[in-house]
Amino acid sequence: MSLPQQVRIVEVGPRDGLQNEQAVPVEAKIELVNALARAGLSYIETGAFVSPKWVPQMADSAAVFTGIERLDGRTYAALTPNLKGFEAAVAAGADEVAIFGAASEAFSQKNINCSIAESLDRFAPVIEAAQAQNMKVRGYVSCVLGCPYQGEVSLSDVAYVAEKLWQMGCYEISLGDTIGVGTPLHAQRMLSAVADKVPMQQLALHFHNTYGQALANISSCLPMGVATIDSAVAGLGGCPYAKGASGNVATEDVIYMLHGMGIETGIDLNQLVHAGATICQHLNHGPRSNVALAELAKQEHTK
Amino acid sequence: MSLPQQVRIVEVGPRDGLQNEQAVPVEAKIELVNALARAGLSYIETGAFVSPKWVPQMADSAAVFTGIERLDGRTYAALTPNLKGFEAAVAAGADEVAIFGAASEAFSQKNINCSIAESLDRFAPVIEAAQAQNMKVRGYVSCVLGCPYQGEVSLSDVAYVAEKLWQMGCYEISLGDTIGVGTPLHAQRMLSAVADKVPMQQLALHFHNTYGQALANISSCLPMGVATIDSAVAGLGGCPYAKGASGNVATEDVIYMLHGMGIETGIDLNQLVHAGATICQHLNHGPRSNVALAELAKQEHTK
Repeated sequence: MSLPQQVRIVEVGPRDGLQNEQAVPVEAKIELVNALARAGLSYIETGAFVSPKWVPQMADSAAVFTGIERLDGRTYAALTPNLKGFEAAVAAGADEVAIFGAASEAFSQKNINCSIAESLDRFAPVIEAAQAQNMKVRGYVSCVLGCPYQGEVSLSDVAYVAEKLWQMGCYEISLGDTIGVGTPLHAQRMLSAVADKVPMQQLALHFHNTYGQALANISSCLPMGVATIDSAVAGLGGCPYAKGASGNVATEDVIYMLHGMGIETGIDLNQLVHAGATICQHLNHGPRSNVALAELAKQEHTK
Repeated sequence: MSLPQQVRIVEVGPRDGLQNEQAVPVEAKIELVNALARAGLSYIETGAFVSPKWVPQMADSAAVFTGIERLDGRTYAALTPNLKGFEAAVAAGADEVAIFGAASEAFSQKNINCSIAESLDRFAPVIEAAQAQNMKVRGYVSCVLGCPYQGEVSLSDVAYVAEKLWQMGCYEISLGDTIGVGTPLHAQRMLSAVADKVPMQQLALHFHNTYGQALANISSCLPMGVATIDSAVAGLGGCPYAKGASGNVATEDVIYMLHGMGIETGIDLNQLVHAGATICQHLNHGPRSNVALAELAKQEHTK
């Protein structure tokens, strides 16, 4: 048990974040992705190719991919639930794609209208098509620490779905506490159960801060060897299951903690804070990041 | 290294919290203290006997002590920086008193207008007077993980002040991250340095959430054996050094984490959430507790 020297941040704000916010102009999205890349984020989930009927906020993802500048060493990824979405992502120039499964049967049914088994069947052609183009596929597993519909989710269900996605060809499995209900020991037990099936180096934590526990959960898991963390600048997205509550853990807060622990990320915190503050000017709320609020207040004070 | 089975919460909302909020009616304070006691809080810092010129929000502390109901097994404590304050606290019926020192020389000078050494001299007669009445004295050390004026604070300075207060007769030393800048490894190192001088059973963590790190810091320290945590319902108080930022870690968020880790506190989370929401009706902001916001949103949704 020792801390990783470096942690890779997967920035999900432009996708997982903005899909749960009011619509913002495409120019603002492009500016956000560019600012994140300049701040040092090496992996930016830039958009989603999903039905605009269900997720109107992502309808302009092709224009975002076309409009952004491409910095070296950055991965601009897209969520693609099916083959049609995958083909659109390729056409738009996505570097990598992601698919989204659930460890909770009830969540799978309500969220993607099919069973877990059916969802895996749907992902197979996406993964095959991506592999045919040497494109990497990331796999999300949602509800790993609890479900808004069924409540508890067994660790064996989480490990099963993670292992399936891994065996099907996902290079990384992102473990999502979709409703942010987990606490440190539960998070550790879950990660341990999954790491029995999938190598730790291929796992990422995607924890939400709805109950304020995300950083405690992340810091509890870091000594287990996990070294990839998903987060959203300014905590973009909020929680669709509890209006006004927090969602994605804020990238600023994760970075502050990691740097404070001597863990490298390659990210400039000050630039990141300003990227978050800028996109929030298009939203009806300020940054959902304690670090951003504290830093912006300090900078206001010293003006 | 194993987790404590029980944690004692020191609720500081009515004092450390409300002294940094706009003034609220005395009836609202009394209702808050009563609600906290009914929710199971066994230690409630109920008021402060300080100059009303410097802290007008605490000018009615005697009326609060007189007005509250006294539940069995509860300690209703007061902050008393000097002998005059101590005598007023005794007259008002405080069960216990607390004194407030700093590990940062710059903070001591700016905040209490004297050096650390002078502040210790001022506390001596308070501790003696309390001991003469068999009354317990709690000691705060502020700036244990950083100072708004001098920046870094050495671990040896923290340990020195903590040991002094302990030797002078304080039964418990509360270690305050006054500006909430600490991160997990720093918090562990600080606690370890102090525990070399003062028994762990006599130490408490008083961490602020200004940079979102409080729960991560607390959860990192729990396996070291610390079993007393200071917190404020609804995160009352905010941060006086960064307007709009968070201050005291919210009791709701601490309790949620502890209960999730199987640690007993004797506190009813739902009653606590409602106590916090009620006092916030007198303030110009909602609860600064992620748990409270999530729970209130869920309850609103299911109405």
